[in-house]
Amino acid sequence: VSRESAFIDSLRALASHPAARGLTDDAAVLEFGGRTLVLTHDMLVEGIHFLPDDPPEDVAWKLVAVNLSDLAAKGARPVGVLIGYSLAGEAEWDRRFVAGLETALHSFSTPLLGGDTVSAPGRTLSLTAIGEADGPVPSRSGGEPGDRLWVSGSIGDSGAGLRCLRGELPFSEPLVESYRRPTPRLAAGARLAPLVRAMMDVSDGLLIDAARLASASRVEIELDLAALPISEAFTAACGGDRSTRLAAATAGDDYELLFAAPPGTTAQIQAVSEALALPLTPIGLLCAGAGLRLTQDGESVPLPASLGWEHGGAHSG
Amino acid sequence: VSRESAFIDSLRALASHPAARGLTDDAAVLEFGGRTLVLTHDMLVEGIHFLPDDPPEDVAWKLVAVNLSDLAAKGARPVGVLIGYSLAGEAEWDRRFVAGLETALHSFSTPLLGGDTVSAPGRTLSLTAIGEADGPVPSRSGGEPGDRLWVSGSIGDSGAGLRCLRGELPFSEPLVESYRRPTPRLAAGARLAPLVRAMMDVSDGLLIDAARLASASRVEIELDLAALPISEAFTAACGGDRSTRLAAATAGDDYELLFAAPPGTTAQIQAVSEALALPLTPIGLLCAGAGLRLTQDGESVPLPASLGWEHGGAHSG
Repeated sequence: VSRESAFIDSLRALASHPAARGLTDDAAVLEFGGRTLVLTHDMLVEGIHFLPDDPPEDVAWKLVAVNLSDLAAKGARPVGVLIGYSLAGEAEWDRRFVAGLETALHSFSTPLLGGDTVSAPGRTLSLTAIGEADGPVPSRSGGEPGDRLWVSGSIGDSGAGLRCLRGELPFSEPLVESYRRPTPRLAAGARLAPLVRAMMDVSDGLLIDAARLASASRVEIELDLAALPISEAFTAACGGDRSTRLAAATAGDDYELLFAAPPGTTAQIQAVSEALALPLTPIGLLCAGAGLRLTQDGESVPLPASLGWEHGGAHSG
Repeated sequence: VSRESAFIDSLRALASHPAARGLTDDAAVLEFGGRTLVLTHDMLVEGIHFLPDDPPEDVAWKLVAVNLSDLAAKGARPVGVLIGYSLAGEAEWDRRFVAGLETALHSFSTPLLGGDTVSAPGRTLSLTAIGEADGPVPSRSGGEPGDRLWVSGSIGDSGAGLRCLRGELPFSEPLVESYRRPTPRLAAGARLAPLVRAMMDVSDGLLIDAARLASASRVEIELDLAALPISEAFTAACGGDRSTRLAAATAGDDYELLFAAPPGTTAQIQAVSEALALPLTPIGLLCAGAGLRLTQDGESVPLPASLGWEHGGAHSG
């Protein structure tokens, strides 16, 4: 185990309250006043989760989006956020960050409720998002053999966008936009929550997150690489061969919904997709067993050495 | 205005939701499901809010205590916390931190609900505390001319404890304990909330926090230095002359309750003090006017150049 996962294990030992969900879910789920609060806290660190020359407006967007994506994965709508902000000494950066924060909060109709500001040498930004769920809150652990595995949107665009910014791929506006301005799937999450058996968001890479869903649900997941939703922009920049598809499935930062649902819900899921004009694509099956198995058009594909970010820092509970 | 206060002003412009209380209170206060949630988020940065050689157990205690102190100041009891933790690369430090976190959460019967962990070069620790208030939640702005100003516990011990650790004063165990293990006044806050007109905690220094209460309540506060509750340990280490009292009143990190209450509540406040064996001391008066005026035994005392930490980072909303 890595040092980080050992640390998280030691925190888990403290998190015995049922609302903590063992620190293995995207968010805490607290019954309060006959209603259901969903609480999440994610940090972004400069040099790790964003680049020093990323536009500050986009960093603010991403800070909001990654937290609201956790709420979306639990079918919750945002109630408000608290921000933790470190002033690193550049007033213009801070001014542009606040402008981006305003844009993001306005886009998702989410009020700023409070926070804390410190002066510190490095930029560590954090957000606590408070949400409310109107129905049962899907965990990662409810998947059952026979369920289909689905994913929203397209996979790999954000990772390819980062490669554009690093000069490893030619600049592609839609890919860079996916990296800098991910869209939390709030409307889809709320509509899907009553239909699914398990749901989470894809933050660290489709394969590693699918493996986590399999582990939490005590099933094996068989995932068909050929079924992966890949965008035209991705294909134009990267092509579409197997290694490229594996790269898309391990790059992370997608902030799409990954969910397991019984076969009988397929028509309802397709209706959600049409109502929201958001692709929802079946990419695999849950089976008795453990772990992750890859195929492409019925042919077995060996798992890549890395399934994604081991601890990209996006989530630990 | 400082860069930090300019930044906070720009955040305030976004915080129009009534639950945010204009980012001028110790916490956000959100009506939810017919009950009252109190939410606060405070950060501790190594080298600013704690010393690199402070025991990690005590840093964990302080992280919990400073956040619960905000809940105490709003009369709320803790419901749970989310942690934001940066792994800086020392497994033993992290192990001791988790042990201290367990001690602190157990002491205040507060569950760990979630959080996020990142690897980062500097230690930036944050906590979001979620609390519930059973009655009206005092703000900083409800004080009225004629109210008495009160403070809990003693003032200056923590600041003197820090000076002990810096070698500027001889080592004193009770003073160092006050610096390292402040006690959030949760029981007192809950009992006082129905009696007071305004309440906050003293984090940045008694004088600067009293000036903030005066400003929020649009009154002048007349504070009697002679009435300041100074501990025996403090007097033994520092003496008791005027400059020493001014140092106690501007050092910060006290995490005591500062509150304004009408004269008719004095007997009830004294009953709370007796029930909890916690000194509650009248130290001044709210008057028509603006700002802060110091006296000592009826004689006017000039305000010191600094009233406390301008933005110690303890609170911004």
